[in-house]
Amino acid sequence: MIPTIERHRSVRNFEPGRPIPDSLMTELLAAAARASTVGNMQLYSIVVASAGSPVFDALGPCHFNQPAAVSAGALVTFCADVHRFSLWCRQRGAEPGYDNLQWFMNAAIDALLASQNFSLEAEANGLGICYLGTTTYNAGDIVRILRLPEGVVPVATVAVGYSAEPLPGLTDRLPLEAVVHKDTYRDYTPERIDEMWAAREASEETAQLLRENDLPNLARIFTERRYTKGDNLHFSRAYLEVLRGQGMFEFDVNE
Amino acid sequence: MIPTIERHRSVRNFEPGRPIPDSLMTELLAAAARASTVGNMQLYSIVVASAGSPVFDALGPCHFNQPAAVSAGALVTFCADVHRFSLWCRQRGAEPGYDNLQWFMNAAIDALLASQNFSLEAEANGLGICYLGTTTYNAGDIVRILRLPEGVVPVATVAVGYSAEPLPGLTDRLPLEAVVHKDTYRDYTPERIDEMWAAREASEETAQLLRENDLPNLARIFTERRYTKGDNLHFSRAYLEVLRGQGMFEFDVNE
Repeated sequence: MIPTIERHRSVRNFEPGRPIPDSLMTELLAAAARASTVGNMQLYSIVVASAGSPVFDALGPCHFNQPAAVSAGALVTFCADVHRFSLWCRQRGAEPGYDNLQWFMNAAIDALLASQNFSLEAEANGLGICYLGTTTYNAGDIVRILRLPEGVVPVATVAVGYSAEPLPGLTDRLPLEAVVHKDTYRDYTPERIDEMWAAREASEETAQLLRENDLPNLARIFTERRYTKGDNLHFSRAYLEVLRGQGMFEFDVNE
Repeated sequence: MIPTIERHRSVRNFEPGRPIPDSLMTELLAAAARASTVGNMQLYSIVVASAGSPVFDALGPCHFNQPAAVSAGALVTFCADVHRFSLWCRQRGAEPGYDNLQWFMNAAIDALLASQNFSLEAEANGLGICYLGTTTYNAGDIVRILRLPEGVVPVATVAVGYSAEPLPGLTDRLPLEAVVHKDTYRDYTPERIDEMWAAREASEETAQLLRENDLPNLARIFTERRYTKGDNLHFSRAYLEVLRGQGMFEFDVNE
């Protein structure tokens, strides 16, 4: 396996404020730009905020000031972007039609493939990374802070920097058969579900979480502590509003 | 730069039907599973259809029978999947709340990061890949063919196989400054737009496209031939229907 892929683990504590040299950052961004992109349209933009800048500080609360966000050397926001391409079209007398959900998806795919190249290249150069899932939660604030015009929507942020501690062990994953299907989707029996999660549920890490949370099983930690239905629906509505506000959702919605 | 990232180019003609050894395919899938995933929930499924299977043949028309799709050794569909995780939650008496747009995004991000690891690992092993953007166009047909249950939505397909011809040169990209912004989005002046596209517009490849299409500039080839507004809106509506049909869009929509 490509060593960098095999060794990936997320870093959540960086040496606070240790900057990433400009030449190295340029290398990471160049790797991002080599990723596949629909029709070679490059429907993404990457916004780099380095530790110490006012924009970096303003982004912290969008990511709930989690340690990975505030200690990073840079917060790199990957955005779906049909704006730049549409400007070019109009300037050439061509009428673009990319202000819709389908092209938000195309552009989001472009942005995410670029982000993964960026992350792997960072890790290959001795840096650590952490994807911040909070980007889609608080996308409206990020739009304002980064001054994103219509046609541009944030989809993922990579916190990148120098790990403050030795890298942890690899994260456990479900058995490969649990996520792979041959030809058609093979639905899960209750027995398979039990088997797939058995190792994780039996771990000492899980036992400690259950004690800390005073809950009887790991699933309820996910649904009652980490990602509650109420929060999920709140952030879902907020992201739809961002899509509409940025002109990427062409339907009327009754809420 | 990681050599595999640096050397990426899409392959559109594979040695028809040349199979990918099972052990190699397992390696590629294992690389996919090492990618970052939100909360270590692994909200994706990967469906592998190998050349020669009825499912492989049925997928061809979903991808408009483009050469990359019909000549590939395998079509690998990466799906956002909250179904498996939700089953586990319910089986533990935990009430999942992942049937919404926000969690479609979380799951789509998981699926896409996995797909890029898969693609790089394939290329590192001498295979070629091509992302098929048609996955989001004809997602409803793909749902039926792959028998995807509620909570599962296809987001990207990687056609993978052995290139039938020597690899082409690297694809040109916009200058890096065109896609990167420092701190905040720096909007584009007409002059910058002209500069950014100058090289591509002046290329012999573009000149040939203009002759073939009898159009005065490259932008109009995109808007009038490749991706027309009418098609875009048609596929946009279709994808929204798939999101709703698969239970990942919780809003009422007036069309």
